[in-house]
Amino acid sequence: MTAVVLDPSPVAAEYQAQVRVDVARLTEEGGRRPRILGLLGEEHGPAATYARYARRGCEAVGIELEVRHVEPDSVEAAIAAANVDAEVDGIFLYYPLMDRAGDRWLRELVDPRKDVEGLHSFWSRQLYENHRYLDEAHTIRAILPCTPLAILKLLQHAGMRGDGGDAPLEGVTACIINRSELVGRPLAAMLANDGARVHSLDISGAVTFEPAIGRHAHDVRDSGIDRASALAAADVVISAVPSKSFELVRGDEIREGAICVDVAEFTNFDESVMERASVFVPRVGPLTIAMAARNLTRLAAVSGR
Amino acid sequence: MTAVVLDPSPVAAEYQAQVRVDVARLTEEGGRRPRILGLLGEEHGPAATYARYARRGCEAVGIELEVRHVEPDSVEAAIAAANVDAEVDGIFLYYPLMDRAGDRWLRELVDPRKDVEGLHSFWSRQLYENHRYLDEAHTIRAILPCTPLAILKLLQHAGMRGDGGDAPLEGVTACIINRSELVGRPLAAMLANDGARVHSLDISGAVTFEPAIGRHAHDVRDSGIDRASALAAADVVISAVPSKSFELVRGDEIREGAICVDVAEFTNFDESVMERASVFVPRVGPLTIAMAARNLTRLAAVSGR
Repeated sequence: MTAVVLDPSPVAAEYQAQVRVDVARLTEEGGRRPRILGLLGEEHGPAATYARYARRGCEAVGIELEVRHVEPDSVEAAIAAANVDAEVDGIFLYYPLMDRAGDRWLRELVDPRKDVEGLHSFWSRQLYENHRYLDEAHTIRAILPCTPLAILKLLQHAGMRGDGGDAPLEGVTACIINRSELVGRPLAAMLANDGARVHSLDISGAVTFEPAIGRHAHDVRDSGIDRASALAAADVVISAVPSKSFELVRGDEIREGAICVDVAEFTNFDESVMERASVFVPRVGPLTIAMAARNLTRLAAVSGR
Repeated sequence: MTAVVLDPSPVAAEYQAQVRVDVARLTEEGGRRPRILGLLGEEHGPAATYARYARRGCEAVGIELEVRHVEPDSVEAAIAAANVDAEVDGIFLYYPLMDRAGDRWLRELVDPRKDVEGLHSFWSRQLYENHRYLDEAHTIRAILPCTPLAILKLLQHAGMRGDGGDAPLEGVTACIINRSELVGRPLAAMLANDGARVHSLDISGAVTFEPAIGRHAHDVRDSGIDRASALAAADVVISAVPSKSFELVRGDEIREGAICVDVAEFTNFDESVMERASVFVPRVGPLTIAMAARNLTRLAAVSGR
């Protein structure tokens, strides 16, 4: 078997076409194009590159993304000002912005109604408790964090299928290497809320996200599972380890026909996975930006403004 | 049996004495008294009364509480300014401040490091996931919401005891009438995280918070339990229904020797409970303010500033 390489760009283009329609409607209603303020700490390097791509991705759907450079000591004030600026509909943060301890708090300072990234604790709580709507009438959808949401969409495009039943992903087993609040943990929750069993590996150990079958939300349990067992059991493998010293996932570790998604800055997969995987997704970025743009259109309903 | 009436004021005084020591240390370190900004919408009525009590309670421990009147259209800007004001250590919101929909979002706009009320989703998530510390070394304690925390302390003073074991409240059954994000839900989570089983009643129905015994955090399950069964089973009854049409809890509904706590603006208990309860707690307010003051001292460690 030789893996099909799934390019996220055409998938992103499909979503962009949908988002463009919603943005055009918001533009007409609001009398101006929706506007995102991006705050960037370092003018060179990966964050600056990402910000440039994000600006192009937003412009492609009719959203204005202003990327502003901010010094560490003025980031909090810039967020506070953007929160109360009626001309700013969304806020995007490109880390690092302060120091490690400071960066941790920044996403809590963004008004959740402007949080196109979906990373504020308000949204995390909706996800972790599996509340998909904010209102009883189920008309206002909760926002999901854009990177894990993009990964979920790519997995679906790559052919991830459950046994159906009550939960669409019932029967799917996943292995996610990374349990950060930005990627690994929310992705594990999303998959498990849809019925998958997820083994989550991280330097601090392994836990298992048990499927939300027969209960409202998934359950997280301590798990002694090791890398070999977690990879051998996985229908889908997502790895996002930001380290060059990570021991690459090899073909002989994965299941024949597994879907593999690489979210890392440096690849997390050895070339040998191409001989065993059914689909290999080498990057996620373009779809992440499409999902952030989609979140902006959904936030218009959330704020009711 | 005639219930002992537990006055929260002497209990509050005990905590105030502890808090005063910590505040004095912070005052010395910071070169000024810690300062809370309170934002008040209505200059008359219950919120204004509460703000006045809060100011006195804070002054009693050496904290300066400035209560500022704000119009609905300037609340968000006032919070944004307080978040970045280095002279403001804590923020206290006295609702109503905007309309119902607006008020809902205000607590998410407060920097969690200044949230003396402990109501930001960041803190809710720590509570609901039963993370009692923010760091791996267990040196920085998470903040708990001050009203349910005050109720927990009063229940302890009233003699609420579990069977010991791994969880201090193992064996305790509670009935909480109210499941708001301000009082009923966080209190249920706190009791269940300590090992109690909590039946939570609300106009939208009943759920049970299963004790966190054998798992990291409590589990919330749908429950068909009715008021009569929930009250009859309860060692402790906490009621916080903000309605004059609420059917008062009667003595013949509760267990002989139960502890009853009334958190409602208008009483939720019929006089007949005095003949069956062991302890009756008629109000919580003074201890709530002591807990908010204590939160302020703990937030100094959280922000690391």
